[in-house]
Amino acid sequence: MQAQAGMDRHLLGLKGIGADEINSILNRAAYWAGRTEKVTNLLQSKFVANMFFENSTRTRFSFEVAEKRLGAEVLNFTSAVSSVQKGESIHDTVRTLESMGIDAGVIRLKPIGVLEELAAKIKVPLINAGDGNNEHPTQALLDLYTIREHFREIKGLTVSIIGDIQHSRVARSNLWGLTAMGARVRFCAPENMRAAELMEYAPYVSMDEALQSDVVMMLRVQLERHEHGMIQSAEEYREQYGLTAERAAGMPAHSIIMHPAPVNRNVEIDDCLVEHERSKIFTQMTNGVPIRMAVLERALT
Amino acid sequence: MQAQAGMDRHLLGLKGIGADEINSILNRAAYWAGRTEKVTNLLQSKFVANMFFENSTRTRFSFEVAEKRLGAEVLNFTSAVSSVQKGESIHDTVRTLESMGIDAGVIRLKPIGVLEELAAKIKVPLINAGDGNNEHPTQALLDLYTIREHFREIKGLTVSIIGDIQHSRVARSNLWGLTAMGARVRFCAPENMRAAELMEYAPYVSMDEALQSDVVMMLRVQLERHEHGMIQSAEEYREQYGLTAERAAGMPAHSIIMHPAPVNRNVEIDDCLVEHERSKIFTQMTNGVPIRMAVLERALT
Amino acid sequence: MQAQAGMDRHLLGLKGIGADEINSILNRAAYWAGRTEKVTNLLQSKFVANMFFENSTRTRFSFEVAEKRLGAEVLNFTSAVSSVQKGESIHDTVRTLESMGIDAGVIRLKPIGVLEELAAKIKVPLINAGDGNNEHPTQALLDLYTIREHFREIKGLTVSIIGDIQHSRVARSNLWGLTAMGARVRFCAPENMRAAELMEYAPYVSMDEALQSDVVMMLRVQLERHEHGMIQSAEEYREQYGLTAERAAGMPAHSIIMHPAPVNRNVEIDDCLVEHERSKIFTQMTNGVPIRMAVLERALT
Repeated sequence: MQAQAGMDRHLLGLKGIGADEINSILNRAAYWAGRTEKVTNLLQSKFVANMFFENSTRTRFSFEVAEKRLGAEVLNFTSAVSSVQKGESIHDTVRTLESMGIDAGVIRLKPIGVLEELAAKIKVPLINAGDGNNEHPTQALLDLYTIREHFREIKGLTVSIIGDIQHSRVARSNLWGLTAMGARVRFCAPENMRAAELMEYAPYVSMDEALQSDVVMMLRVQLERHEHGMIQSAEEYREQYGLTAERAAGMPAHSIIMHPAPVNRNVEIDDCLVEHERSKIFTQMTNGVPIRMAVLERALT
Repeated sequence: MQAQAGMDRHLLGLKGIGADEINSILNRAAYWAGRTEKVTNLLQSKFVANMFFENSTRTRFSFEVAEKRLGAEVLNFTSAVSSVQKGESIHDTVRTLESMGIDAGVIRLKPIGVLEELAAKIKVPLINAGDGNNEHPTQALLDLYTIREHFREIKGLTVSIIGDIQHSRVARSNLWGLTAMGARVRFCAPENMRAAELMEYAPYVSMDEALQSDVVMMLRVQLERHEHGMIQSAEEYREQYGLTAERAAGMPAHSIIMHPAPVNRNVEIDDCLVEHERSKIFTQMTNGVPIRMAVLERALT
Repeated sequence: MQAQAGMDRHLLGLKGIGADEINSILNRAAYWAGRTEKVTNLLQSKFVANMFFENSTRTRFSFEVAEKRLGAEVLNFTSAVSSVQKGESIHDTVRTLESMGIDAGVIRLKPIGVLEELAAKIKVPLINAGDGNNEHPTQALLDLYTIREHFREIKGLTVSIIGDIQHSRVARSNLWGLTAMGARVRFCAPENMRAAELMEYAPYVSMDEALQSDVVMMLRVQLERHEHGMIQSAEEYREQYGLTAERAAGMPAHSIIMHPAPVNRNVEIDDCLVEHERSKIFTQMTNGVPIRMAVLERALT
């Protein structure tokens, strides 16, 4: 299926990708996670460009570790904050880097819709490292990997995603991926942080109900995005939608806590829960590397 | 000739460099462009520092691809916008990096005249990646390569360079390189964008005349540099000095369009011409890599 | 002694480190300085992260040369100026990078005390590349190396450190290192640049007395930090505490001049002294690479 090359070696999002393909990526990630030698020569002489039109040192770092563990040549491109923000100039920049001979591009950008246009014109595979509030597929894949590793199977699990759904690409990619894998997804968010277009795919539930899940996935909240919301302060947000120690104590014994990081301690999640035994936050980060190795391998071999 | 080492392994500019030496670089670039393996070990264990005292992610990227294809160890140094701008502190920084054991330096900087002083004091070869409005020799070499590749020979061709000649290091390096190779160079620019000191080397012609050339080379315009010019807006610039689709239609059938990029679409060049069949813009970028490999090889072996 | 692994492979500071351990690092640096091949494979497949929460392109560059000469995989992490400044978020970032599988971290950060907390929680060795005004151990080690190389022995030498002692981690690390090695350290500083807590370890002397030393170590002065000081201008500073050509002429014939760089020419040191025959400034930078190789080797093997 992937052998047709070209388009389907891109990874633009999880929407429309089926369970078989997701499982194949997770299995391959498990293979890489289990390898004892740290660096292979699988991608020797391949040039991978990390093109970040939006800042993200952590995600770029995770990709870079994955690329170097596969033996690729790594090139980092970070645009100045304002100079390259329009779709047109992003397009020219990516075409420029392609002209210079890169073999694959990892890309993060703000404007929505630009990535698909790019992928249609670019000959090398592109891997989405986050585009606007649309998708962040490698984040969702590492979340799926973490969930599958813990529960053995994703099918049948209930996953509640809590926070600013409207602005979250993590929520969207997880929605598509979890649904494809047979999990039941529910959202929990204040009214002004809900995404109208997702209503048909997942119900909004109360905080109390959300906590009664196998997986509670908290999102990073950025209150400055919501000037006119009903929630005015970090304290208020924590009180209404934060995963406090008290709330966590009421979660099912077998449940796990996830967060894509970086966390706002004592806003969406209490300080003491970040490294709690039920928390998978640092495990998620660890799993990001083999997931990205699997995605890069899929793109380039 | 180059075997004397030291000074003549620098590449500070094309002024004063003869056709033989230029051809030798272009030939070597052709060799690298034709190699099938992507990475060699020619510069194994050589440390090349990309020292950018002025932002340029594209040029730095092109050099980095070239350096890695030659197997060199790459170190990137980018100075904070304002902290290192004076010639004196650039000098101290370059001497510092030299002290740390680099084998060659690729350097971009703003103040004019500093590069020559540096080259006289530094023991490792320096490659100019753009200094003020003075020279940008690797850009001109890749332009020469692109022209030679297309027309087989540069001698006898007419090349018109259109735009802000006064502030353009690309125009200057191309003037010296093209003249050395036997081409006839003409400039076309509004009065306030002309360079008085170049009058003796190339005539200024009208836009109509400029378009009747073998090569039309457009320059990136930055109107904000010309507050008191007669041209007040992008629209006005396009109307008077832009390569519009209409104007391009009147160019000779065999002619080509060039631009050092990044382009201001619909200012100095119309959107539809950027990837036009007559345009060499992305070919120029592709050629930048083997040209820089040839220049690095010349500097270090 | 170092074979116990864990904590003592960190290098957080020189305070409390004895002469034997320092000598062992200096000896190993001498070994690396004497090697003819530039790149070894000692740290092949080891991932070293340079985590700079405070800008410093020079120190990062020196570490990167050292890491690459040892064959390590290098990852650079530089935080945006303001986003990661609090100890808590530095902690989360470092834990994140650790989760991604780095083998050692080189870290520079502003807040004091954070590094020790980090080192207690992090499983990989950490190397301090400067923390607040507390310590900068690799700078002091390269200074010790430079002094030992020149005088054969450090024991018994008189070293005067002149300038903003209060804000200087270089002064503190040198104080601990030099004292451990048996040198006699003296400070010289205007009253508002003195460090009260160091009074018991080294006396403050006059400028005239300070110049009568085997080693005169000048510190970079940042007058903007001292709004209410008695010294109001660079000229005034130079007059009272600068190493002028005139003052240098009165130094003992066998003495040497040091400075951690970058220098403020004609403020704390006269322009003509920077590359003076008595000056070790660029030698210090050269020695930084083998010192950091020795420290990385100590951390990772």
